[in-house]
Amino acid sequence: MNATAHKTARVISSEELLAHYQGHRNLTRRTIEAFPENEFFSHSIGGMRTFAEMVMELLGIAGPGMQEIVSGKSEPLNEHVEHDNSKAKILELWDQTTEQINMLWPKISAERFQENILLFGMYEGTVISSMLYFIDNEIHHRGQGFVYLRSLGVEPPAFYER
Amino acid sequence: MNATAHKTARVISSEELLAHYQGHRNLTRRTIEAFPENEFFSHSIGGMRTFAEMVMELLGIAGPGMQEIVSGKSEPLNEHVEHDNSKAKILELWDQTTEQINMLWPKISAERFQENILLFGMYEGTVISSMLYFIDNEIHHRGQGFVYLRSLGVEPPAFYER
Repeated sequence: MNATAHKTARVISSEELLAHYQGHRNLTRRTIEAFPENEFFSHSIGGMRTFAEMVMELLGIAGPGMQEIVSGKSEPLNEHVEHDNSKAKILELWDQTTEQINMLWPKISAERFQENILLFGMYEGTVISSMLYFIDNEIHHRGQGFVYLRSLGVEPPAFYER
Repeated sequence: MNATAHKTARVISSEELLAHYQGHRNLTRRTIEAFPENEFFSHSIGGMRTFAEMVMELLGIAGPGMQEIVSGKSEPLNEHVEHDNSKAKILELWDQTTEQINMLWPKISAERFQENILLFGMYEGTVISSMLYFIDNEIHHRGQGFVYLRSLGVEPPAFYER
């Protein structure tokens, strides 16, 4: 198979993957909104982290990860932000990250998706495997947030709505 | 942008997406294995389904969904299988589905990924959006299975190992 035939066998465009990611991020935003303020920062099952802590991990990965893919400059992963136990503050950071991703994503040329990177100076992969990890990791933790909500008697948002 | 340029902007090959899906399915298999036999079929949090019920949904979607994408013949979604409260039976069906997906996936040409379908006679989407839904839905429910395991005092498998 020559290089052109290989390229035409690809099945998702960069734009489609961005829309897919932001659709998931929108659902996670509604999951954060569904939490009672106090339990967002305090509720836990089986010794796991609170949903706020998981969301801070997602915030630490998404914006800084995209920034690093674009710039090539590595910074250590930071999973903590100033939030003063305020969901509004977390949602504000969430929305800033949404804008940041929309701004950075188109700067990554399709040719770069197979490039090898060492994200946060630690995680080996390609650009595309890193992006899929961002998305998968968010789905994984949001699924856990859904269990937290159910255990609090709160109905989570519909999974299929983005 | 002409048609060729549009195609070259795509960033994941069909083969890569299959490997990504089977990597996730392998992690789900190890999650099933980690459950104590009885709790796999009985444990629940907040009125949610047991992990066995979620896994039967995944089995009902994966093999039959791929079969329908290939054949174009719709069947209603079936989320129940005969299991006799045996994890070994579920794992046997899981492995049969792994083979079935590996056999069916290469029959879907890259050109078909943007085709509109009505999966199980109910769910509108494209071939690629349906496949991404299979993967995302599995990650979502497996994340919930991780909480069930933690609440039982069992350490889940590592999320990043596939």
